[in-house]
Amino acid sequence: MRKTGLWVTWLTLFLLVLPVSAQRREIRIPDIAGYKTLKCDLHMHTVFSDGLVWPTVRVDEAWREGLDVISITDHIEYQPHKTDVPTNHNRPYDIAAGRAAGLGLLLIRGTEITRDTPPGHFNAIFLNDINPLDTKEFFDVLQAAKAQEAFVFWNHPGWKAKAGENYIADINEKVREKGLIQGVEIVNGRSYYADAHAWALKHNFTLMGNSDIHSPADNDQMQRENHRTMTLVFARGKTIEAVREALLRGRTAVYFGNTIIGKSDFLEELFEASIHVQKPYVRDKNTVSVLVTNESDIDFELQRTGKVGPTTITFPAGRSTFVKIPVDKDGRAELAYTVTNLWTAPGKGLSLSTNFYAE
Amino acid sequence: MRKTGLWVTWLTLFLLVLPVSAQRREIRIPDIAGYKTLKCDLHMHTVFSDGLVWPTVRVDEAWREGLDVISITDHIEYQPHKTDVPTNHNRPYDIAAGRAAGLGLLLIRGTEITRDTPPGHFNAIFLNDINPLDTKEFFDVLQAAKAQEAFVFWNHPGWKAKAGENYIADINEKVREKGLIQGVEIVNGRSYYADAHAWALKHNFTLMGNSDIHSPADNDQMQRENHRTMTLVFARGKTIEAVREALLRGRTAVYFGNTIIGKSDFLEELFEASIHVQKPYVRDKNTVSVLVTNESDIDFELQRTGKVGPTTITFPAGRSTFVKIPVDKDGRAELAYTVTNLWTAPGKGLSLSTNFYAE
Amino acid sequence: MRKTGLWVTWLTLFLLVLPVSAQRREIRIPDIAGYKTLKCDLHMHTVFSDGLVWPTVRVDEAWREGLDVISITDHIEYQPHKTDVPTNHNRPYDIAAGRAAGLGLLLIRGTEITRDTPPGHFNAIFLNDINPLDTKEFFDVLQAAKAQEAFVFWNHPGWKAKAGENYIADINEKVREKGLIQGVEIVNGRSYYADAHAWALKHNFTLMGNSDIHSPADNDQMQRENHRTMTLVFARGKTIEAVREALLRGRTAVYFGNTIIGKSDFLEELFEASIHVQKPYVRDKNTVSVLVTNESDIDFELQRTGKVGPTTITFPAGRSTFVKIPVDKDGRAELAYTVTNLWTAPGKGLSLSTNFYAE
Amino acid sequence: MRKTGLWVTWLTLFLLVLPVSAQRREIRIPDIAGYKTLKCDLHMHTVFSDGLVWPTVRVDEAWREGLDVISITDHIEYQPHKTDVPTNHNRPYDIAAGRAAGLGLLLIRGTEITRDTPPGHFNAIFLNDINPLDTKEFFDVLQAAKAQEAFVFWNHPGWKAKAGENYIADINEKVREKGLIQGVEIVNGRSYYADAHAWALKHNFTLMGNSDIHSPADNDQMQRENHRTMTLVFARGKTIEAVREALLRGRTAVYFGNTIIGKSDFLEELFEASIHVQKPYVRDKNTVSVLVTNESDIDFELQRTGKVGPTTITFPAGRSTFVKIPVDKDGRAELAYTVTNLWTAPGKGLSLSTNFYAE
Repeated sequence: MRKTGLWVTWLTLFLLVLPVSAQRREIRIPDIAGYKTLKCDLHMHTVFSDGLVWPTVRVDEAWREGLDVISITDHIEYQPHKTDVPTNHNRPYDIAAGRAAGLGLLLIRGTEITRDTPPGHFNAIFLNDINPLDTKEFFDVLQAAKAQEAFVFWNHPGWKAKAGENYIADINEKVREKGLIQGVEIVNGRSYYADAHAWALKHNFTLMGNSDIHSPADNDQMQRENHRTMTLVFARGKTIEAVREALLRGRTAVYFGNTIIGKSDFLEELFEASIHVQKPYVRDKNTVSVLVTNESDIDFELQRTGKVGPTTITFPAGRSTFVKIPVDKDGRAELAYTVTNLWTAPGKGLSLSTNFYAE
Repeated sequence: MRKTGLWVTWLTLFLLVLPVSAQRREIRIPDIAGYKTLKCDLHMHTVFSDGLVWPTVRVDEAWREGLDVISITDHIEYQPHKTDVPTNHNRPYDIAAGRAAGLGLLLIRGTEITRDTPPGHFNAIFLNDINPLDTKEFFDVLQAAKAQEAFVFWNHPGWKAKAGENYIADINEKVREKGLIQGVEIVNGRSYYADAHAWALKHNFTLMGNSDIHSPADNDQMQRENHRTMTLVFARGKTIEAVREALLRGRTAVYFGNTIIGKSDFLEELFEASIHVQKPYVRDKNTVSVLVTNESDIDFELQRTGKVGPTTITFPAGRSTFVKIPVDKDGRAELAYTVTNLWTAPGKGLSLSTNFYAE
Repeated sequence: MRKTGLWVTWLTLFLLVLPVSAQRREIRIPDIAGYKTLKCDLHMHTVFSDGLVWPTVRVDEAWREGLDVISITDHIEYQPHKTDVPTNHNRPYDIAAGRAAGLGLLLIRGTEITRDTPPGHFNAIFLNDINPLDTKEFFDVLQAAKAQEAFVFWNHPGWKAKAGENYIADINEKVREKGLIQGVEIVNGRSYYADAHAWALKHNFTLMGNSDIHSPADNDQMQRENHRTMTLVFARGKTIEAVREALLRGRTAVYFGNTIIGKSDFLEELFEASIHVQKPYVRDKNTVSVLVTNESDIDFELQRTGKVGPTTITFPAGRSTFVKIPVDKDGRAELAYTVTNLWTAPGKGLSLSTNFYAE
Repeated sequence: MRKTGLWVTWLTLFLLVLPVSAQRREIRIPDIAGYKTLKCDLHMHTVFSDGLVWPTVRVDEAWREGLDVISITDHIEYQPHKTDVPTNHNRPYDIAAGRAAGLGLLLIRGTEITRDTPPGHFNAIFLNDINPLDTKEFFDVLQAAKAQEAFVFWNHPGWKAKAGENYIADINEKVREKGLIQGVEIVNGRSYYADAHAWALKHNFTLMGNSDIHSPADNDQMQRENHRTMTLVFARGKTIEAVREALLRGRTAVYFGNTIIGKSDFLEELFEASIHVQKPYVRDKNTVSVLVTNESDIDFELQRTGKVGPTTITFPAGRSTFVKIPVDKDGRAELAYTVTNLWTAPGKGLSLSTNFYAE
């Protein structure tokens, strides 16, 4: 009898803990507009540059966290571990590829071109061979990436910039004019670059957001916010080629903290695909109460811009919320709100308006 | 500047905490077989008998926890607070009804008939007036319930019974023979009654499971298991009449802890509606790996009964799990498992078998 | 074998969940200045006025949450449940007293005097009999409280006031001039009253903070912040008499959210008794790193006001934090900080300065 | 105004999340018997053998988790990454040493001697140079360790053994007879080796428990149990030399899951230093209720072996629990319990007995 007591403790622990290891948490952000919403992190490091984990760790972390696509992008030029891990640019991909395939995670060969600011750092992805990019002249590197039809984006544009400083230098404009980049990383880890966001919108660059993790993912600060910064890619399917096509067409949004940045049509579709209104409504004299279920992982925060309705509404992730809407005698209300955590431009939330009608 | 620091603290708190109050957590158990799966708790108490909360609290708790239907069933005969709260059997329903209507929660008028063991306690629900049941003779009470076309079920049948004791007394058999009950509460709070379960199956009674809460719900032990014990009712719609029809036809299952008890066809449909297999599969020489997403709130636990496949599999709630299936050269496997936490009878898990074929 | 599988699930649940019910979580705020720091909530309601729980629930909740002292203060004049629960002012205390004694929780007989604004609501505690206070004229009520040597405080002074409105009315000044109150509730639930705080400081009233809970405590918003708003009473011991003596002498602080409001000497002692610096220090050329452990439940937030040291420091509750201090060649540094969440006056944090010396 | 809304979201996130990164969670297991209770993990891996992280990661993880002492013990003979990370046995220590010193964490140079079973794997720690141990003959390796006055222990003795198999081979007895090991790792990660435990007790070996982590610590299963498996070392101080002295004298206990294994006198002191009984007691006719606060991280689980008192008692970590003790007319009770999760030998809990006397 006594023995039982002793052992149940440990057994109990074992039963409860065991299954966790093989789990993947799906990120609840819906597919939209006929596209699959792929969760992508296209900027991260391993011991092969200044990261702190073996390449397979990046695959396992990403799979567990619900990502669909990653690119390991070790620095070409910055190799602080090279005394112990001799430079070999293609190795991180080669080491991680088998594990990614076994888990059904898409792994894209990529690298980080690393220059002082300006011009700063750039990721080139969809490469066949990283070695040709290991060359001295900056523009030669970008041409080498172009020769492989890489998708190139400017990383953390305001990194090292002082507050208020214009960090979009002449050389960055030159890179743009020559058509050598296709995207801008407007969020890197926990840093958002408003000026780069405006610049990307002006020149129609693809909006990117990535983790740039160096430490193990679970230890990293961004992890504590429940998910890492990532690029949502609206792709025709879950294939490398579909990711490339979507990136080239600018079909992305950036998911960081509790905020998504993107074009207003994508954001509106994400909102509408996340939110479900239950029927029947509960109706009072002058108000109709609707139960609204938010099936996404995002807490949507709304501020009223119209004349009627609650001043602010929050639809918490995975919860249902009752909203009381004052209606006219026909059961109608014109509602206008800004979703303050869906950003269409720096400092600009998504505008929503609807003619509500209680049947 | 300093002031800002002081206030942000409190503001921050406010922003994060505020929305929680108006939330409802939906219980993720899917609709099946063309029916709506209503989450029902048909046994609970207030200060009007030996409970510790005001009737409206039962409505608010139930709504927040994702329930669709409740019945407040204060004891007729046991009135320990009557010095301060004079006996008034219909008041709990009358007090709570408006609030339930405002939240779209179905409230059924009910009561608990309370006699020493045997025969024990019985809930009568769908009553118009509880007062006629406040009469001395036990069988008169049941007849009074019948006269109102109530649905009557035997509560916590093994309560007060010693281990191994037969608690199904002659008087309980007599109640059955006279057709005075339609259901048996095989789980009450955290207590499961295996013999009553077998008896209910034998005589085709509707299976019931309820919380029987007396304290505030959040404080109650069962709450710590993430949900209270409840009856899943497979109804044609979310109306009182549809609940009655489903109860009379025996279309229920009992959800308690991480276990569901019910007929095998309902359980199989619940399992299949919860589980989604992602494509494409990852295929190796002799194995096919499938990513299985469990969109329900239940951790499904499987034990192998067939010849191939992992010995045990857990599909944790809301997670995706990789399962490696050894296949023959044609990509086929005959899989047979028992789902050990879906019970079709005492000590008997749901049997599943499938001819897996990897396209 | 299969049976085992079925039952372990439920057993496991049982083992893990069972002990929780009898738990009390101690609040980690240290004793100071030779006094015992009693955690007190002296404002709450039950079904005997407009609250929603039975009086014993208030005892159980308080005990579980780590409180030492409570007063149930049902409204004398506002009795919305009186149809069902006839008015009986002394009953809540009488019903709850036995349970409080059994748990070692101090229960003080009290009530809430309830008038329109102004003058508003007042709690009178340490009463022998509440009935004499049930009288028409406002000043008669306060005199009746005084006759029983009650401690009286003004509740939620700015309740119903518009932003910017002066809510300290002539009648409130008159109450003060007549010496009929000894305390001011500067925080009520989640509302802080800055003007009342300033007024209380000016006239040397005892600072009070209470929950004013009406719903079950676990459901209440404030609960989600990890603790309810409470008054810390620095008492000579854990007795009713010691609480009274401390309240009369003004030895209190108000604990709400992650903030404590009080006199600077109490706050400084609370900070110092919470924070421990581990030795030996880790010393570099020009910096000394010290590991600081915060054993309290409060996250202390510091902003630099002096010339050296990190701009901001957070000492999270129950954690250790490394702080790098730049020192001169003798290992010295003059440090000056404001603790922004310990408030000595409206908008004013606690100032700390120290001559750090690394031995 | 609208802009504020947008930004507060992100700011809020930032404020709450930022401090976490620099945190250390202290493990609440008290100092005993005049010794400091050091939390030690003396078995772990990095990319320099088959681990998946850079050596500094092991330091950061350990510091955050509240450990005081670690040893990185990469395999000498098993070097699966050597194509990319050429063999260099002393590098993990050399790379990590500076970071450990900066955080005040003790780092011991160590390695894992890796042979097929039997004899299996052995850790040698307190080495000056690992290279002399990289030699072919097994006994030569152990002699090389001895020459450096290393502390050597047998790792995961039952690893690869079948259930019921005697895994203590002749060569292991020979190692023992020659005095070449001083300790036995009776718990490795989540595996407990009962026969090795008995063998270690019989031959008076120092009891060891370690994580043997290969992945990042946060991702590892054992992390989900709230702490990794570790050796508690009762040392005269927090120095490398004091750790060595304590290990040689056998002053250790093994902490895994919710269980501690060790000598009864250490366990009894740990229990008594963790548990505090509050006064005054609450006294009834025939019972005395005592409020017992458990300030440790361990949930103590007690089963009655004497005649009076509750059959089982749990003292949850960091909580207070009320225990009702039946007393005789003089207020006395003879209490006898087994603490089922403090193990003095395989299957044997710590016996406690006390003559309780309620003053």
